[in-house]
Amino acid sequence: MEAHERGFFTEENSIEVVTGRNKNAKDARLKQVMEVVIRKLHEAVKEIEPTQEEWLQAILFLTRTGQMCNEWRQEFILLSDTLGVSMLVDAINNRKPSGASESTVLGPFHVKGAPELEMGANICLDQKGEDLFIQGRILDTSGNPIADAVLDVWQANDEGFYDVQQQGIQPDFNLRGVFRTGLDGRYWFRAVKPKYYPIPNDGPVGQMLDHLGRHPNRPAHLHYIIKAGGFETLITHIFDPDDPYISSDAVFGVKESLLAEFKRTHDPVRAKEYDFEGDFWEVEHDFVLARVGERGR
Amino acid sequence: MEAHERGFFTEENSIEVVTGRNKNAKDARLKQVMEVVIRKLHEAVKEIEPTQEEWLQAILFLTRTGQMCNEWRQEFILLSDTLGVSMLVDAINNRKPSGASESTVLGPFHVKGAPELEMGANICLDQKGEDLFIQGRILDTSGNPIADAVLDVWQANDEGFYDVQQQGIQPDFNLRGVFRTGLDGRYWFRAVKPKYYPIPNDGPVGQMLDHLGRHPNRPAHLHYIIKAGGFETLITHIFDPDDPYISSDAVFGVKESLLAEFKRTHDPVRAKEYDFEGDFWEVEHDFVLARVGERGR
Repeated sequence: MEAHERGFFTEENSIEVVTGRNKNAKDARLKQVMEVVIRKLHEAVKEIEPTQEEWLQAILFLTRTGQMCNEWRQEFILLSDTLGVSMLVDAINNRKPSGASESTVLGPFHVKGAPELEMGANICLDQKGEDLFIQGRILDTSGNPIADAVLDVWQANDEGFYDVQQQGIQPDFNLRGVFRTGLDGRYWFRAVKPKYYPIPNDGPVGQMLDHLGRHPNRPAHLHYIIKAGGFETLITHIFDPDDPYISSDAVFGVKESLLAEFKRTHDPVRAKEYDFEGDFWEVEHDFVLARVGERGR
Repeated sequence: MEAHERGFFTEENSIEVVTGRNKNAKDARLKQVMEVVIRKLHEAVKEIEPTQEEWLQAILFLTRTGQMCNEWRQEFILLSDTLGVSMLVDAINNRKPSGASESTVLGPFHVKGAPELEMGANICLDQKGEDLFIQGRILDTSGNPIADAVLDVWQANDEGFYDVQQQGIQPDFNLRGVFRTGLDGRYWFRAVKPKYYPIPNDGPVGQMLDHLGRHPNRPAHLHYIIKAGGFETLITHIFDPDDPYISSDAVFGVKESLLAEFKRTHDPVRAKEYDFEGDFWEVEHDFVLARVGERGR
C-alpha cells in the first residue's frame, strides 16, 4: 500500500487523516462537530507554528483552567466568556425578529426561588446604595402589552457584589425579586444603582487577561429573565451607559439596545411616595418579547 | 458614539471586537497567538452553531480533562495526541532536509538515566518475549557514518507495558538502554519484539475515542533519541509494519519512513552467538541525522 492509502499522517494531510478516523462515530452530530473542531484546531496550529515549549504552555494553561474548577467556580466558562465565545453562542441561539429585545449572557449569579414580590417592592433589603426606581413595559413585537409576564430580576449591590458572594454580609435574596405584570404589561420596582465589578480573576483566566493588557470588569447592569406564555424567554441585562467599562465589558455582554438611561431625579413628592430619602436614580426601559416561532433573522 | 465605535459585540463582528481588546498585550507573540486562537475558535463556533447544551457539554468535557491530570497523568496531552495536534507540532518543529530520518512523538514513557550499555547488550532483563536483534547505522545526509552518536532506546514489552507501568513486575530499566557508536557509526543490540498497547483510556479522552468509534491502540514500536555533536537531535520510533494497528495509530505517530521490516530468522549459529534459544526476529534500520543548520524543507 502507498502511504496515502494507509492514511499515514503528514503536516500536509493532517486534517484529512485525523477527521477520517471518525467515520464510525456513534453520533452523526458529534462527528460533524469534531470535523470542524479538528479542522480549525489544525488550521490554528499551522498558522501559529508553536514551538514545543509554547504548545506545552498551552497544555498547562488548559490543565490549570480545569483544575481551578469546583462546584462554585467554573473557570472554563470564564475562559469562554472572556474570549467572546459565550456571547457568540448566546447570539447564535437567540436570533430575534426585528424589534424584539436582545439577549445577553445569563452569568453565574442567578438564584432560583427568589421571592415573588408586589409590583413596586424594594429589592434592596439593607438600605445600602443610591436609590433607584425602575419601570417599563413588557410588549409583543406589535407593541401590545403582555399580561402575566414574569420578570426575575437580580443585580450586584453598590459595591459590586451579589448577595451569594457576601453571605452573612448581605441579607439572603438581597437585590433579587420576581414580579408579574398586569393587563397593562407594566412593571416597576425599587432597587439601588448597581456598580461595575470584576469577574473572578485570581485564576488562569485572570492571568491571561493581565498578560493581554485587559481589565476583568463588567460594567454596571441589572439582570432580567422575562417569561410569558406563548413567548420566547428573554435572558438579558440593562446597562448603565455612563459606566467607565461600558465599552470594554470583560465578557462582551453589552449591546446597543441594552443601554438604559440612568436619570438623576430631583422630585420630593415621588421620593416620599417611594420612601426614598432624597434625590434618586430613575430608569425607564421596555422589553419586547418574540412569540414562539417568531424567531430568526 | 455609534455602536461600532464603542466596540459592542455582535455575531458578525465578534472576531474583530474580541481580538481588538488585546491591543495592550504585554507580549507581542502572545497577542499574535491569541489573534489566531480567537479567530479560529469563533470560526468554529459559527460553523458548528452549538446549542447552549452542546456548548455546556464541551465546557464540562474540558473541565473533566483538566481534572483527570495529576503528576503522572496528562489528559490534555492525550487529547492533543489523539486529535493529531502533538504530531502536527512535532512535524512543524522538525522539518528535515531531504534524506534525514523523520521524527515522531516522544511519548510519556521516556526515563532519564537509563544505563549506558556495551554495543550488543540485551536490554530485555526478564527473558520474557520473542528475541529480537536490531542493527543499523547512524549516518549524515551524505551517507557518512557518525561516530560517538548516542542512542537512547526504550520500548514496551511483549504484553504492551513499559517498565514504569509495571514497577515490581518488570525489573527497573527493563527494555531501556543507552548505546554509543564507534567510528563505523554502527549500532546493534538485543531486545524483544514489542507489542501494540492502548494509551490510557479510562478518562475523558478514552470516552471521546469510544464515541468516535476509534480504538485507543498504538502499533508496536521502539523509541529512539539519537544525539551527536553538530547534529540535530532525532526523537523517533521504528514501527512493525505488520502490526494490526499500523494504519490507525491512536496518536498518528506512524510515518512511512519509520516502518522497519521485522524479519523472522532461522540461523542457529547466530542465535547461539546472541544467546537466543532458537529462531528470532531481526530488524535492520539506519538513521540519518541532519546537521545543525541543515534543517528546513
